[in-house]
Amino acid sequence: MGRRKYAIGVDFGTESGRALLVEVATGKPLAGAVYQYSHGVIDEALPVDGKPVRLGPDWALQDPQDYLRVFKRAIPAVLKQSGVDPADIIGLGVDFTACTMLPTLADGTPLCDLPEYRRHPHAWVKLWKHHAAQPEADKINATARQLGEDWLERYGGKISSEWFFAKTLQILDEAPQIYHAADRLLEATDWVVWQLTGEEKRNACTAGYKALWSKREGYPADAYFAALDPRLEHVVDEKMSRAVYAIGERAGGLTAQAARLTGLRPGTAVAIANVDAHVSVPAATVTEPGRMVAVMGTSTCHMVLGAQEKLVPGICGYVEDGILPGLIGYEAGQSGVGDIFAWFVEHAVPPEYHQAARAAKRDLHQHLEAEAARLEPGESGLLALDWWNGNRSVLVDVDLSGLLLGATLATRAPEIYRALIEATAYGTRAIVEALDTNGVPVNEIVTCGGLPEKNALLMQIYADVTGRELKIAASNQTPALGSAMFGALAAGSAAGGYDTIYAAAQKMARLKPKTYRPNPAAQQVYNELYADYLTLHDYFGRGANDVMKRLKRRRAAAR
Amino acid sequence: MGRRKYAIGVDFGTESGRALLVEVATGKPLAGAVYQYSHGVIDEALPVDGKPVRLGPDWALQDPQDYLRVFKRAIPAVLKQSGVDPADIIGLGVDFTACTMLPTLADGTPLCDLPEYRRHPHAWVKLWKHHAAQPEADKINATARQLGEDWLERYGGKISSEWFFAKTLQILDEAPQIYHAADRLLEATDWVVWQLTGEEKRNACTAGYKALWSKREGYPADAYFAALDPRLEHVVDEKMSRAVYAIGERAGGLTAQAARLTGLRPGTAVAIANVDAHVSVPAATVTEPGRMVAVMGTSTCHMVLGAQEKLVPGICGYVEDGILPGLIGYEAGQSGVGDIFAWFVEHAVPPEYHQAARAAKRDLHQHLEAEAARLEPGESGLLALDWWNGNRSVLVDVDLSGLLLGATLATRAPEIYRALIEATAYGTRAIVEALDTNGVPVNEIVTCGGLPEKNALLMQIYADVTGRELKIAASNQTPALGSAMFGALAAGSAAGGYDTIYAAAQKMARLKPKTYRPNPAAQQVYNELYADYLTLHDYFGRGANDVMKRLKRRRAAAR
Repeated sequence: MGRRKYAIGVDFGTESGRALLVEVATGKPLAGAVYQYSHGVIDEALPVDGKPVRLGPDWALQDPQDYLRVFKRAIPAVLKQSGVDPADIIGLGVDFTACTMLPTLADGTPLCDLPEYRRHPHAWVKLWKHHAAQPEADKINATARQLGEDWLERYGGKISSEWFFAKTLQILDEAPQIYHAADRLLEATDWVVWQLTGEEKRNACTAGYKALWSKREGYPADAYFAALDPRLEHVVDEKMSRAVYAIGERAGGLTAQAARLTGLRPGTAVAIANVDAHVSVPAATVTEPGRMVAVMGTSTCHMVLGAQEKLVPGICGYVEDGILPGLIGYEAGQSGVGDIFAWFVEHAVPPEYHQAARAAKRDLHQHLEAEAARLEPGESGLLALDWWNGNRSVLVDVDLSGLLLGATLATRAPEIYRALIEATAYGTRAIVEALDTNGVPVNEIVTCGGLPEKNALLMQIYADVTGRELKIAASNQTPALGSAMFGALAAGSAAGGYDTIYAAAQKMARLKPKTYRPNPAAQQVYNELYADYLTLHDYFGRGANDVMKRLKRRRAAAR
Repeated sequence: MGRRKYAIGVDFGTESGRALLVEVATGKPLAGAVYQYSHGVIDEALPVDGKPVRLGPDWALQDPQDYLRVFKRAIPAVLKQSGVDPADIIGLGVDFTACTMLPTLADGTPLCDLPEYRRHPHAWVKLWKHHAAQPEADKINATARQLGEDWLERYGGKISSEWFFAKTLQILDEAPQIYHAADRLLEATDWVVWQLTGEEKRNACTAGYKALWSKREGYPADAYFAALDPRLEHVVDEKMSRAVYAIGERAGGLTAQAARLTGLRPGTAVAIANVDAHVSVPAATVTEPGRMVAVMGTSTCHMVLGAQEKLVPGICGYVEDGILPGLIGYEAGQSGVGDIFAWFVEHAVPPEYHQAARAAKRDLHQHLEAEAARLEPGESGLLALDWWNGNRSVLVDVDLSGLLLGATLATRAPEIYRALIEATAYGTRAIVEALDTNGVPVNEIVTCGGLPEKNALLMQIYADVTGRELKIAASNQTPALGSAMFGALAAGSAAGGYDTIYAAAQKMARLKPKTYRPNPAAQQVYNELYADYLTLHDYFGRGANDVMKRLKRRRAAAR
């Protein structure tokens, strides 16, 4: 046997980047290191000297140098911690939030790093949660409907203000000089890989899920872009690329400069860039159709693989090669999950529970979970719609809002907490059933992200509500593990890695032993409650009563 | 001019009784005293020695001796405080919660005061909020519908478990020996007057609003009672009385024994017994049709006078002579108002607002009111249904429950607080419109009770939502003042009192100077929001979606 080989995954989150060094043969993590972005999320003013440059509401930017500092700090840190010889690191993969995009020069220099553009907000990285491009998203949707663009159906009939062309069009609308100065417009995940390999190669995942690309049809036609804005007609050829690489391919080898930055060897294999949610799928052991991966945190992202293209109304999209090579990756999402629970805990729980939690030396979530776990299904007498942050699937409507029904003078915080968990479980069931009834089977659910490990009650409720077994990915750093797996794949078996992601997943990914199985009695009650949820879901979500939209309009008008 | 004359009103509440001594010529209060019932609300176990006698859920009893202690303590206290000569006290009136009823011997001795029955819960006073007689209420309603009883319409089509015959039937069902031992079954308000005058005389207010009596038709026929239970056939003649006295009549003069108990002169005029809400009407200056009195506290009671009998769907009832002699008194109610705000403040407000309220040295209600007052109508983005405690009018359905709609991650406590106030205002508007469109005009609203003085924001919202001017009764002891007014009426002008309640009201009752007038801009927004409220009100309240009832049933089944 030769020396043990290792791979590194780098996961770029919203507030920080994290490197994880794992053993290729087993997936065992040897070392991890986090770099907190020095400028974090830039949402009030640009981090520049002199007169402050303030940002509008809903803006969210980042500094691309923070990404390079993750490479510079976190990779040497894991090398040092683990004591592994850089010669034994065979591959490197990265994953990122998306759509997180930036304008650069032809050589990759971010426009915000140039003195002449540094004080211009549109020259900086637009973070996924930059929500100031809603007018542009509306225009993109309206124009697509007007021109009868087929691709709109792949995205459940509507695209989001978070996506690539909404952000691009906002730059053009508000700062044409930045748009014209940008030789390249690209996802940050592709940009960091470019910084590692010296080659600009775009990945199929963000191209497909965020930039309207498909393997068969490519990007929307130039005529569509011209209809949006004549100056946008040739955006793909001028500032992007029609060459799009499947997830699982090798992007290149580490340049000498990137090797100096990271402490790794020049030529180390680098994988095509990836996205945090999608890269988690094989790290959660899923490489085949029929098993959903749910990344559950503040929001939830649901991914299923399919062998065939199916139109599923109200999902976020489907992309061939977008999650794993050779398969269709279906994505759906719930825009509010953990953040609804966090809202509740922060804004609607009276002092007595805060005190009781402190006395019991547990956090308030744990305390409420323990109290809520003492209730039977149906015992709260409450039913909620999980739309505190709108609905991303299957209604695809940001103007929907939260509803709580059944409150009495006897209602207490743990009952509401449980009702909110149940509501998000019903939301998941709506997605599971939309996929399942449209030919994309979902037989079990593998979870990862922050929530599943923290909340056993939630897991059991999800099993009871969806009627599926729920499992949990063993790694608590699923995205970084997934990126490391793709690093090992980029290296190939000749270098001690793998030739297929299936082989990598078999060796490197695993599940926790605990399985949450549906309890038949609870399932029966939840079937009835879900029928009531669905009636309300359709009544308020499909136009019978648009009161939620009217309330949002009045709220906006009053401000 | 002769010596100044005085009257005393005694108001029996849920936790205590209060005496108020006022000047007859002006209504000016000279002294007040409160006696806290030594046994308060008995809802866990009887206050007896030996082995505990526990009560079932929803039971609420009282000790009749506590009522006599109010006379014994509070009346001498106001005499002493004011220095008024008992010879100058010309009259005495009482008002009570209702239906609060008890079984007694023929001489008025409460059964619970007899050693052989003292350990039997059914021998005690059943307080208005004793809610354990729901099966009996259901039977009373079903039997009435089956037999096509006309009187059911006078009560909006349904009677409540709080009412007289539901409580009576529960005694018969569960403790026939108590039922048979009871020579008399009567309202506590009539019982205390009996203790003062030595004569059992029943008042038209409780007979009409709680015991199905009407001036024209009397009680339901014996055949109806026989259909409920053969043993109940002659309940009226055996244990009640067909002689019913109009509000405003004289019940009698104080007996020697009652004079010793109270320190008043024997023969002092005593008014026919009354009820706390209804007695407030003339004390709030209302003695004519067109002006609603709203007694606003934990719940709200709405009363309007009418010259003619009108059927108004969903009100609590109408009774000729029930509020003022010669007029029809219409009553409606909201079962949850102040107690919804109290629920919210106690169970759904996070610590930061508790701290801020403490720092600002105001109670949490005041603090939330001040914060909520900074919002424009519609700005909260929320809409609620005010059914935390069911709906008493106009849907008459205890199984309805609260709803909050429009919540987002940005929703904060003051917004919910305001939405709950608005919801109760919409509930009031629904009642006002039900009366108005059925021929019982409501041109303005005079409020009294605890809430109006405490919450100016609430008053303005009610004016904006109902489109009516709102006023506040000047006295903060409206029921006790009203009772004193009826005491002065019982004395008559020859004794220095009054011969009509109209004359008494003109001299003794007044309003605060402040009037809340509808703001046209706010009214416009609230008209739109009310339309949305009404759509939800009908959708959830009139059978289109019975989800609230299903949730209540599941909740009951899970316990």
